[in-house]
Amino acid sequence: MAIILITGGARSGKSLRAENRARSFPGRPVYVATAEALDTEMAERIARHRARRGNDWIERETPLDLAQALIDTDGGGARLVDCLTLWLSNLLHAGLAWSKQTDGLVETLARQRSPVILVTNEVGLGIVPDNALARTFRDAAGLINQQIAGVADEVEFIVSGLPMKLK
Amino acid sequence: MAIILITGGARSGKSLRAENRARSFPGRPVYVATAEALDTEMAERIARHRARRGNDWIERETPLDLAQALIDTDGGGARLVDCLTLWLSNLLHAGLAWSKQTDGLVETLARQRSPVILVTNEVGLGIVPDNALARTFRDAAGLINQQIAGVADEVEFIVSGLPMKLK
Amino acid sequence: MAIILITGGARSGKSLRAENRARSFPGRPVYVATAEALDTEMAERIARHRARRGNDWIERETPLDLAQALIDTDGGGARLVDCLTLWLSNLLHAGLAWSKQTDGLVETLARQRSPVILVTNEVGLGIVPDNALARTFRDAAGLINQQIAGVADEVEFIVSGLPMKLK
Repeated sequence: MAIILITGGARSGKSLRAENRARSFPGRPVYVATAEALDTEMAERIARHRARRGNDWIERETPLDLAQALIDTDGGGARLVDCLTLWLSNLLHAGLAWSKQTDGLVETLARQRSPVILVTNEVGLGIVPDNALARTFRDAAGLINQQIAGVADEVEFIVSGLPMKLK
Repeated sequence: MAIILITGGARSGKSLRAENRARSFPGRPVYVATAEALDTEMAERIARHRARRGNDWIERETPLDLAQALIDTDGGGARLVDCLTLWLSNLLHAGLAWSKQTDGLVETLARQRSPVILVTNEVGLGIVPDNALARTFRDAAGLINQQIAGVADEVEFIVSGLPMKLK
Repeated sequence: MAIILITGGARSGKSLRAENRARSFPGRPVYVATAEALDTEMAERIARHRARRGNDWIERETPLDLAQALIDTDGGGARLVDCLTLWLSNLLHAGLAWSKQTDGLVETLARQRSPVILVTNEVGLGIVPDNALARTFRDAAGLINQQIAGVADEVEFIVSGLPMKLK
């Protein structure tokens, strides 16, 4: 089944594009949120996205075990995973090995029957960050994006709300 | 008439591309500068851009009321607005509501007879900034870019001086 | 002969793409490294890249005089220069005039018989950096990218490991 990666910068319109792609498949779409409402800024953002999507989505919060969430929700409508960079952040905070988790995600993606649309961020096109943690994060994010893009059937890069087809 | 958005990173060749697009239309081109020469770095940059453009341009400095500048200069050659991210920065410093101002700009763009070429920056493809003000700025910049790209007739993304057609 | 510029963000897959392009030409490929193993992080990165490339490459370390390295290695297989942004960083640390060095590089590129594949980074798509040195660096990097892209026969922009053709 279709594995679609939607990548781009912050506030580039990735989520909206991914929602439209998810809705284009038959069945009730599933929103797999990696975000947790840990502060006001994030809580407001989650609420805004939910209001835009409307009530027709099945919702699931999955800060860490993304592979399991996909297994549990397979067989129905498309799953929208929003987003991989927050998932990476959650894995690093939890002290989990992101590369092993990503390998597991790739294996699971290969066995899905229903479509999966994954949103991610490009974070490596600015100046090299001062602190080592931020460099580690952007290195890992870049490698995850390459790995998922490698197995995806379609990859889109969104700039100013408009998609460019990478694959 | 043609509304053209030219986006890209810092020093990617956006302004030069926009100047060439503006000159390709009949009539004397109008340079609508949102920059103010508040420090030496900016003053030098403004002087460099002016030297490159030459003397055939009508110049107008408009740090805040972009819609009025477009209304005042309509009917002649193409207007080059350089750039939307500096305009956003000026609005935020002046305590004005950027989303209301952007709605006003969109309404004005729809009524223009002469072409408008707008330059903007992609600022959301690096690591999440540490401070909240920078995050607010990049969120607003991303949303403005989406909104203007949505109403533009053409959108180009410039990388290393070379354009990619987004729309 | 072919001059190819490969640009993109950190960990976007630029080096791997450039290695594959270099290997596609006849002759033993030459790896022209601008990196120096000044700290553990960089030493590990250099070792990782070397392990991936394998033993069939001629290797040359050239932190500063890139033009001379190209002249010395011309006539055989393709040269892979990895990367221009590190070269810029080395020039700035050594107190050399980057624009004069870049002009020299451009002149040398025009006279090469064997192919040259150059890797560079896009560093201007994040928030404006706080400190003046970082702003100077990203301005110079952007201008170098424009200049080399201008004389290149091919330019590719890599996102999530996938190439977009700019030229």
